[in-house]
Amino acid sequence: MIEAALAELRALDREARLLEHTVAILSWDQETGMPEGAVEERSEQLALLQSLVHQRDAHPRVGELLDQLDQLEESDPFVREKRRQYEKQTRLPDRLVRELAETASRGQNVWVHARRDDDFASFAPWLEKLVAINREVADHLGYEETRYDALLDQYEPYATTAEVTRVFRELRQGLVPLVQRIGAAEQVETDFLRRGYPVDRQRAYSERLMNVLGYDLERGRLDLSAHPFTTTLGTSDVRITTRFDEHAPESGIFSTIHETGHALYELGTGKDLAGTLLAEGTSLGIHESQSRLWENMIGRSRPFWKAHLPALRELFPDQLGDVDPERFYRGINRVEPSLIRVEADEVTYSLHVILRFELEQALIAGDLPVAELPGAWREKMRDLLGIEPDTDAAGVLQDVHWSMGAFGYFPTYALGNLYAAQFLQVMEGEIPRMWETIAAGDTAPVLAWLRERIHRYGKVKSAGELIQEITGGPLKPEAFLDYLAAKYEDIYGKG
Amino acid sequence: MIEAALAELRALDREARLLEHTVAILSWDQETGMPEGAVEERSEQLALLQSLVHQRDAHPRVGELLDQLDQLEESDPFVREKRRQYEKQTRLPDRLVRELAETASRGQNVWVHARRDDDFASFAPWLEKLVAINREVADHLGYEETRYDALLDQYEPYATTAEVTRVFRELRQGLVPLVQRIGAAEQVETDFLRRGYPVDRQRAYSERLMNVLGYDLERGRLDLSAHPFTTTLGTSDVRITTRFDEHAPESGIFSTIHETGHALYELGTGKDLAGTLLAEGTSLGIHESQSRLWENMIGRSRPFWKAHLPALRELFPDQLGDVDPERFYRGINRVEPSLIRVEADEVTYSLHVILRFELEQALIAGDLPVAELPGAWREKMRDLLGIEPDTDAAGVLQDVHWSMGAFGYFPTYALGNLYAAQFLQVMEGEIPRMWETIAAGDTAPVLAWLRERIHRYGKVKSAGELIQEITGGPLKPEAFLDYLAAKYEDIYGKG
Repeated sequence: MIEAALAELRALDREARLLEHTVAILSWDQETGMPEGAVEERSEQLALLQSLVHQRDAHPRVGELLDQLDQLEESDPFVREKRRQYEKQTRLPDRLVRELAETASRGQNVWVHARRDDDFASFAPWLEKLVAINREVADHLGYEETRYDALLDQYEPYATTAEVTRVFRELRQGLVPLVQRIGAAEQVETDFLRRGYPVDRQRAYSERLMNVLGYDLERGRLDLSAHPFTTTLGTSDVRITTRFDEHAPESGIFSTIHETGHALYELGTGKDLAGTLLAEGTSLGIHESQSRLWENMIGRSRPFWKAHLPALRELFPDQLGDVDPERFYRGINRVEPSLIRVEADEVTYSLHVILRFELEQALIAGDLPVAELPGAWREKMRDLLGIEPDTDAAGVLQDVHWSMGAFGYFPTYALGNLYAAQFLQVMEGEIPRMWETIAAGDTAPVLAWLRERIHRYGKVKSAGELIQEITGGPLKPEAFLDYLAAKYEDIYGKG
Repeated sequence: MIEAALAELRALDREARLLEHTVAILSWDQETGMPEGAVEERSEQLALLQSLVHQRDAHPRVGELLDQLDQLEESDPFVREKRRQYEKQTRLPDRLVRELAETASRGQNVWVHARRDDDFASFAPWLEKLVAINREVADHLGYEETRYDALLDQYEPYATTAEVTRVFRELRQGLVPLVQRIGAAEQVETDFLRRGYPVDRQRAYSERLMNVLGYDLERGRLDLSAHPFTTTLGTSDVRITTRFDEHAPESGIFSTIHETGHALYELGTGKDLAGTLLAEGTSLGIHESQSRLWENMIGRSRPFWKAHLPALRELFPDQLGDVDPERFYRGINRVEPSLIRVEADEVTYSLHVILRFELEQALIAGDLPVAELPGAWREKMRDLLGIEPDTDAAGVLQDVHWSMGAFGYFPTYALGNLYAAQFLQVMEGEIPRMWETIAAGDTAPVLAWLRERIHRYGKVKSAGELIQEITGGPLKPEAFLDYLAAKYEDIYGKG
């Protein structure tokens, strides 16, 4: 009885996941190479496929099977996550799902023009609608303390607003003075990064890096797109994209490493989970911990470039012939408050996130009218980073997330930094001679550790469970702050 | 009542076509860039999507609606073709559809190894099964005279075995002596084609050619694959693939032109048909007429290379500096009996097809036991082309079609030649100064003529209707034979 119900539930899940991967293939194609003329019909194809996924995940039969299996909900992660998914899919009335999708689609379009024209007023009514819809979404999904809990849970399952608020408060208290100390010190030199790096050779180097990091290209590939991303098209088909700028080679290098970190996580889920809803990253925060650990903690470390600068210099002898590993290391770790989140360095980045977290909470709580948002943005930029944008395009309009109706997404970026530093601390203790091995060009022990402790579990363990089991304690910002202090006092001096 | 039924039928068709295009996207990706590791899951995805298409096209509701609309079947091509599709989809029992799919899938796999190892015996039992299944398929589909009628109709709708047999007999009678006359003449020189043509520049030239021929790259793209093909991923998304051989530039050039011919047809279907089952080529024979007209009749003509050789010479000055248009023209029109169909020239090609047409008819009729097939193949090669293969790999095992369970497909290749020549004759009379215009680098009038007379109709008009309306008579081989005789007597002399 139980076994038959479980088998049926697995079969239903399997079909939905196959269709979900089909959606990923269509989206990947749209971002990487689809002819322009195909945009409109591709939207229709995507909407149809997404509705087929939804029909399956929200099918009444799924509810019946879950009721039959309710005694397994605590012990079987598959049943637990199917229940969570089913509730999320069925609690929202169709009317609201459609309203959100349509408003987000049109809102995003308005946002594109508003950002281009630096015209917040034209976007404001859409943002108001999206805030209102998200409040309603939260009411349907349900929450313990605040509406924002329900929204956050969509991206960082089982996390609470209270916990994130507490952790971010400490993080902010540590970061602001660190940024000020660095700002008072002598700036590092980055001229050699502006010497012109032909894009085809940058690409060759990126593919080399993917290999070096253990990304199996029989299970993935690299393409170009306007915004780098990672996407899972199948159990053995996880692809990344990047972009190359002839006059900023670090952009392509580090976005490749970043996306490789995401891809390694997706490719590392256990074989026993293959093809089920458990075979993916457990939260966006943990996902981001993987990309940022590889990008910043490994990829922007001295030992890493001790191993890998020679190959880069071989490809770019004119540009890097006179650049030794130390100069390169300092150049790629330049810290400077800036206006745009996606261009921010490792130290200031989390402050951009905290700003958005605070503002979107206030929007959802109804404490901040949309009309006052641009002013609030500038004020917080001054408080957190000591600079403020001249335009809304370089301020409140810079990110796509809110225009897509995504509230509760931003904090996961900074949570990734914190998780990563906590994992790194444990890893350094457990992998013998870790940095020496990395300096010798071998990151395999790092990947093996991540696979063993994190990747293979997919969604079997929540972010909170992972951090508790691996570090013996909860999420906290100390490890990240200690990591930054040590690294940047070494580069910029004690100030 | 009628209007509501028609609207519902159109909506059902629309969803099936969107899913069908999704299948095309998945297949395109599989052939062009999918990581190797993804093969197995991609098969699952494809099987699922194909079953979703079938469920929609064979849905009982479609049958009910068609019954309500039966008075429109003669006047409305949409209703007529939906009825045909519905009958084809519902007449085959599920058991048989699955059996065919599984046997074809496994048979194709066995064939790959059999061809590699030149081991017909290992493939023979699979071929026997596939013949038996196809006989059963024909019995379920129904036919007027012979089982082969039902199979042929899958690829060349409304064509009959009797008509094709009659036409091919005349074609054969004209071709065999022509090939013999050419064989007795002095061979043309092709050394300059073996000088080494770097592949990246070949690709640049192919993209240039696509542009020149009017293939709008905002509605398509070029990629590489093992076997060139054209595929429709959406109303405004028709893609081609090709392959390049450094030591045979003509291979890439003419497969690009060939596939461009297919793509122009698909892109040229009328806006009023967009997104329906009518928005595709009306038969494989007519499709092939478009690809071969562009590849051979336009693309291998003197006037075409008068216009386009200069750009090719600019890209390959070392290889073509001493080659004038006449030498180039003669080189790309070399005729010589050979063993492999896909490498055959314009004159001998149809004889390869006639051989397969005769053999597969005999197999389906039960007149030729599979065990005797290799011998029959060699005998027919001698009769038709005067040569015979040393191995089955270069003989009966060379083509994939039978291993996929496709019987009735081959004749469409030669029908394409005949249709193309018949269209060309009319076109030459209707387009003022056609060849002078082509010699001046302008093929737009040719494309405009094809769009107006053929492309825009999609499946609204059958192959037979098109040929009757355009030429005032039925399918016949004279135009093609006259075209070949004139062209090759000019190149090889009267013999």
